[in-house]
Amino acid sequence: MPPPVLNSALGLGRRLTLPDPLRLDSGVELAGAKVAYSTYGAFDPDNAVLICHALTGNQHVASPDLKTGKPGWWEAMVGAGRPIDPTRNFVLCANVLGGCSGSTGPCSTPPGASRPYGSAFPAITIGDMVRAQAAWLDQLGVKRLKAVVGGSMGGAQALAWASLLPERVRAAVVIASAARHSAQNIAFHEVGRAAIMADPDWNGGDYDGAGPVRGLAVARMAAHVTYLSERALTERFGRQLRNAGQFEVESYLHHQGARFVERFDANSYIAITRALDAFDLAEAHGGSLARAFSPATRFCVVSFDSDWLYPTAESRAIVRALNACGAPVSFVELSSPHGHDAFLLDQPDLRAVVGGFLGSL
Amino acid sequence: MPPPVLNSALGLGRRLTLPDPLRLDSGVELAGAKVAYSTYGAFDPDNAVLICHALTGNQHVASPDLKTGKPGWWEAMVGAGRPIDPTRNFVLCANVLGGCSGSTGPCSTPPGASRPYGSAFPAITIGDMVRAQAAWLDQLGVKRLKAVVGGSMGGAQALAWASLLPERVRAAVVIASAARHSAQNIAFHEVGRAAIMADPDWNGGDYDGAGPVRGLAVARMAAHVTYLSERALTERFGRQLRNAGQFEVESYLHHQGARFVERFDANSYIAITRALDAFDLAEAHGGSLARAFSPATRFCVVSFDSDWLYPTAESRAIVRALNACGAPVSFVELSSPHGHDAFLLDQPDLRAVVGGFLGSL
Repeated sequence: MPPPVLNSALGLGRRLTLPDPLRLDSGVELAGAKVAYSTYGAFDPDNAVLICHALTGNQHVASPDLKTGKPGWWEAMVGAGRPIDPTRNFVLCANVLGGCSGSTGPCSTPPGASRPYGSAFPAITIGDMVRAQAAWLDQLGVKRLKAVVGGSMGGAQALAWASLLPERVRAAVVIASAARHSAQNIAFHEVGRAAIMADPDWNGGDYDGAGPVRGLAVARMAAHVTYLSERALTERFGRQLRNAGQFEVESYLHHQGARFVERFDANSYIAITRALDAFDLAEAHGGSLARAFSPATRFCVVSFDSDWLYPTAESRAIVRALNACGAPVSFVELSSPHGHDAFLLDQPDLRAVVGGFLGSL
Repeated sequence: MPPPVLNSALGLGRRLTLPDPLRLDSGVELAGAKVAYSTYGAFDPDNAVLICHALTGNQHVASPDLKTGKPGWWEAMVGAGRPIDPTRNFVLCANVLGGCSGSTGPCSTPPGASRPYGSAFPAITIGDMVRAQAAWLDQLGVKRLKAVVGGSMGGAQALAWASLLPERVRAAVVIASAARHSAQNIAFHEVGRAAIMADPDWNGGDYDGAGPVRGLAVARMAAHVTYLSERALTERFGRQLRNAGQFEVESYLHHQGARFVERFDANSYIAITRALDAFDLAEAHGGSLARAFSPATRFCVVSFDSDWLYPTAESRAIVRALNACGAPVSFVELSSPHGHDAFLLDQPDLRAVVGGFLGSL
């Protein structure tokens, strides 16, 4: 029996410890795993919307990041009068397993130990992230989700939720995502991991203090280019020079790298990118993506025409599989100049699509 | 008066010192600059074809690399019975200024010094590379080129030749290239430079021995992803695992990085990528690319449909400018699954286009 929900378990910046060991896809049992989360709105087990964050996101979806003070990363989508409205829904968001914003990850200290996991942190999968979230929701007394919503890696989690625990998901909103990571995406991730591991401060993953911040900054720079469209880079920076022969776009990338290492952990970056690279929903179903889904879940799939990291073809593959298995799905490719990052921005048509879909549930 | 051409100045693996200091775009005068080159076929000042190499290429275009023993990098295009045929043309290729295959670059030792230039090597431009080649051709007694041919950065040099020295260029073949480097391309180059500079062995550019090989390998990995199309990566590697959870594409990239550092210098990589980033032919002509060209030169412009580093739109911009200035130009977009690297591969349609064009001169 789950414990009764206490109001003290709800709100911003919360954390709980899962009572049972988490059995990972690798076979490893992870004991004492913690889940850091925030909730918005009044507790309502029948009206819960779970938001899954992207690779470098966290639980601060619609309220200031408690570490950096920056606004929540999806205030465009979550808030009063927004498509995911805490005045009408019980909204939840947790830091993923493997993360570095309070949930158990490589920089957590294992129960009874005196040093962080570091290199000893086990390999994790998108499925493991979902099962950790399910165990956490059990503790809160949320049996079934009205919807699970996510963009990019959040979309992968939404797909995995619908695939692994269809009885708990009435609807899934999958934005700028894919049912498997492409060779090109794996390649870009490996460039980032190689940059981290080339940094002598990485020390095989067992570092003290800040760790391999130079390598992590390079990893972020490489990834950041993939989040933007060529058009967005051209319109924003073109070939403008900042000073002394440095282009604006160079200075911008270095700024992104420098800010990133203040808030993210290199081992988490490695663990989470590996989880994403390993993601392939069809693989676990004999190569048939259609068999990964249940027709009982309703889907909303959204792509952006300038997103070359998760191009529309990846969303179409999801939609074809959903059609094949008879699941209700609405699909739209939205127009945006902003590339993959479009899902994070305040776009009226994205708000209309997601708001309309959730309103119809 | 140039010295008479000696047969001893022709052939494979040659090098000569320019008699006069080279005045660079930066204003710096570079004394004692050396040009390393290879020639193919009999000396013929009226029938000379200059091949310009790409970012990490060298003078060994149609004969084994004297350092690695690997075949010439463009044997698909240059050789008996090939579009650029040394039995019918006097073919030349020189290592670019700033390179590390024998021409003067950051790892050369300045006249009278005991240590390499390192961080003291001056900034260079694509125009500087072209002027170094022109001074070298003066020494060989080649006043005018039947054609200058290049892919990628070689195409940029071909464009710069036609723009800076139109009286010396009857025709230019520009493959998979652009008249200016885009913000996205600058961004990817800066990721590579940041990886090199994050390596403690870089030491601000003044290193002994191998130098920042870890950073340089990461730079090559990042660049290599941009040379291939998503389709090529998917078809070649897909999501195949090699061992212990490593994907084939990861192992391939690491192999590329490891091989690259055996043959390339980090300071050269920085100097040449900066030259390419600074390249913008229109800029020097009041923003008008049409004014950069002379109608006296004939052009052949080729792009590949899967090349996202230098997409067809960049070639179209060149063709529009050539049309505007009344220069004769033939343009074709070829179909290939191989992305930017297609220009290096043995493709019958590329051979047909280049061979047909050169045959018509």
